Amino acid sequence: MKTNLSVDATRISDTIRGLSRITEPDRPYTRRAFTPLFLEGRAFLEERFRAAGLETRIDASGNLIGRRKGRRSGLGTIMLGSHSDTVPEGGRFDGIAGVAAALEVARSLDDAGIRLDHDLEIIDFLAEEVSIFGVSCIGSRGMAGLIPDGWLSRMQGDLTLRQGMIDMGGDPSRPAQQTRSDIKAFLELHIEQGPVLESEHCDIGVVTAISGITRIELLFEGQADHAGTTPMGARRDALVAAARMVGEVERLGKEFSRGEGHFTATVGEFSIEPNAANVVPSRVRLLIDARAELRPEMERFIVEVDQLAVDVQRETGVSIAAPKLISDSFPTPSDPSVLHALEQACEDTGATHRRMASGAGHDTAWMARIARAAMIFVACRDGRSHTSDEWAETDDIALGTAVLFEAVRTLDRDLQGER
Amino acid sequence: MKTNLSVDATRISDTIRGLSRITEPDRPYTRRAFTPLFLEGRAFLEERFRAAGLETRIDASGNLIGRRKGRRSGLGTIMLGSHSDTVPEGGRFDGIAGVAAALEVARSLDDAGIRLDHDLEIIDFLAEEVSIFGVSCIGSRGMAGLIPDGWLSRMQGDLTLRQGMIDMGGDPSRPAQQTRSDIKAFLELHIEQGPVLESEHCDIGVVTAISGITRIELLFEGQADHAGTTPMGARRDALVAAARMVGEVERLGKEFSRGEGHFTATVGEFSIEPNAANVVPSRVRLLIDARAELRPEMERFIVEVDQLAVDVQRETGVSIAAPKLISDSFPTPSDPSVLHALEQACEDTGATHRRMASGAGHDTAWMARIARAAMIFVACRDGRSHTSDEWAETDDIALGTAVLFEAVRTLDRDLQGER
Repeated sequence: MKTNLSVDATRISDTIRGLSRITEPDRPYTRRAFTPLFLEGRAFLEERFRAAGLETRIDASGNLIGRRKGRRSGLGTIMLGSHSDTVPEGGRFDGIAGVAAALEVARSLDDAGIRLDHDLEIIDFLAEEVSIFGVSCIGSRGMAGLIPDGWLSRMQGDLTLRQGMIDMGGDPSRPAQQTRSDIKAFLELHIEQGPVLESEHCDIGVVTAISGITRIELLFEGQADHAGTTPMGARRDALVAAARMVGEVERLGKEFSRGEGHFTATVGEFSIEPNAANVVPSRVRLLIDARAELRPEMERFIVEVDQLAVDVQRETGVSIAAPKLISDSFPTPSDPSVLHALEQACEDTGATHRRMASGAGHDTAWMARIARAAMIFVACRDGRSHTSDEWAETDDIALGTAVLFEAVRTLDRDLQGER
Repeated sequence: MKTNLSVDATRISDTIRGLSRITEPDRPYTRRAFTPLFLEGRAFLEERFRAAGLETRIDASGNLIGRRKGRRSGLGTIMLGSHSDTVPEGGRFDGIAGVAAALEVARSLDDAGIRLDHDLEIIDFLAEEVSIFGVSCIGSRGMAGLIPDGWLSRMQGDLTLRQGMIDMGGDPSRPAQQTRSDIKAFLELHIEQGPVLESEHCDIGVVTAISGITRIELLFEGQADHAGTTPMGARRDALVAAARMVGEVERLGKEFSRGEGHFTATVGEFSIEPNAANVVPSRVRLLIDARAELRPEMERFIVEVDQLAVDVQRETGVSIAAPKLISDSFPTPSDPSVLHALEQACEDTGATHRRMASGAGHDTAWMARIARAAMIFVACRDGRSHTSDEWAETDDIALGTAVLFEAVRTLDRDLQGER
């Protein structure tokens, strides 16, 4: 462990450990947004925010914010944070490490007697994970004024998302107050959720972009014949065709990943009908999840998948509906000046670092719509996340927190020329 | 249509049409065993059996039997029949055509003033299709004394199979009376449920064997990583491995089907976990349904699948549990003398005919354990079955019935030397 860090590793791990105790007892670690447990976690955080001298509030979008006033508030706000909600049976670090790090930056500034010129805000975004309403990044979308039409009416049981946000202390009826224009920079620390930093023994991933995510649905329509009586040559087996497509998508994903920029392609959803032992499968639905750091690569991939569908249909006789883009979000490049500040901070703290893209979505992608934004990754064990096994070393998080600390000081100085 | 047939096509289609009216009205044609509708169908049949002069009864296994006494009852019984139960949303001909044909043989013998030496029994087996208890061929297994231990205790809701059989008029507590030793020959007419006869414009399929059915379960265990953050080269994707296996099973199935004897291989059941868009699939279960007319071919196939599992595991890094035989039934060859009688009957009636194996299971396979048995197929449109579209031409069924009629006369004469 680096011993001369400007931050206190023990306080970070105390925050993380404290939150980890607030979980559904029989399925750790579960603290989903919009639940009483989530509010319990929020109360724990708010108390610690206050103890750190922060002025707390819940904003219109249900985000918990702790504010540390700057000497020249008119300059605007530097914001740090992540989220404290989890997926079901999630881990102790995804999001939480970033909230704990942000809080620790505020405390360390106090310890060092540093008052920034900008206001500093520490944030716990509402519902970054896919929530009980089936959608994610509610708080950061809300802050950017980008909650899609109709989402507030989404139901879970008797509850609307609108009422859920109110229950969390938000007030989505104040749309005018949702969009923030005062944020000069946003920074987030997060665990990598992948194996790269650990396998390369690298301290910090400086995130150059958050990949765009494109989801492509494919429907295969064959014929449900008797598995015993229909000769092999007289079949239109939807599973055989879909299996070929899975192999081709993997081949394409590998090919694209050897090119420029981060690229992944995964078939994660796959179901067949009638799914009966003695019937030739008549129907398959599959969903491709593709992620690209560079938009032109994604566009090339989409064209290739279209062509594959034509080829597999021709080869198998199984009808394949035209591939349908279920969602198609563009990559979000990080802000160059914030990136630069983060890399400089890595050098200053002696952290080894590399540039990398995020394959996962994050609140930072939404904050980038309204502010200069970038994020850093720290290693997590075996690249595992969204599981109770998720683990990140306190020392790694503390080093990342020190990088944030330094970057905030740099940005507080460098952003003063801007309005 | 052949006009000089010894049987009456109109009576056959009347029986089939009458039964087709006894269906769940909103999902034709559904008349599942152990339901009140099935009993309604049975009442319809029993009335027609009686009207044809047959002496009716329900045996211990719940089979409806109509008996036409022979001149020399001590010679034993020639039995004809099939089943009147359907799958959910099944068709009007699967099983039913065989019961109608059997009844028509009895009537035609009367019309022709023929009294056989053997007793003739017309049978509607109980629950040939996979029933609400998850198992099939209850009646024919029962008649052969081959209902497995424990089956009678199977539950559907509050109902045991034992009670279900009692409700159908059976009495499974009379095991000693279940196994019949007096049956000298059993014949069944059935629709092909495949496309071969139709595509070859052939009247009759003389079934040389009922294929053995082997079901092989394969479990793939990969790792559930984040679909966006896990590099393509660092994955153990269970779906990718399983998709490769599906392709290889199809390749093998085609290869074996070009060899000697009927062979099919189908992956009909296939499911993945966690089945989430953004997670690399960690687990796949699939079930291979393989059918072979010749046992050595099946044994060779099983060895090949074992080797494939080893190869795919080595190539993908996904663990594959040793392939597990969920069930493994041997082929049932038809009795040569009954086959000969059927082929001679085809020649006598002027029916074009070919030998073929049955890829589907039938009551005949169980009857073959206790009697000389064989069956014939008639064409069904587009090879389709187990659907409301299922269709067979009355003329084709009538021609098949005439073949049964002739075969019964031959067997009545030729089997007299035996006891």
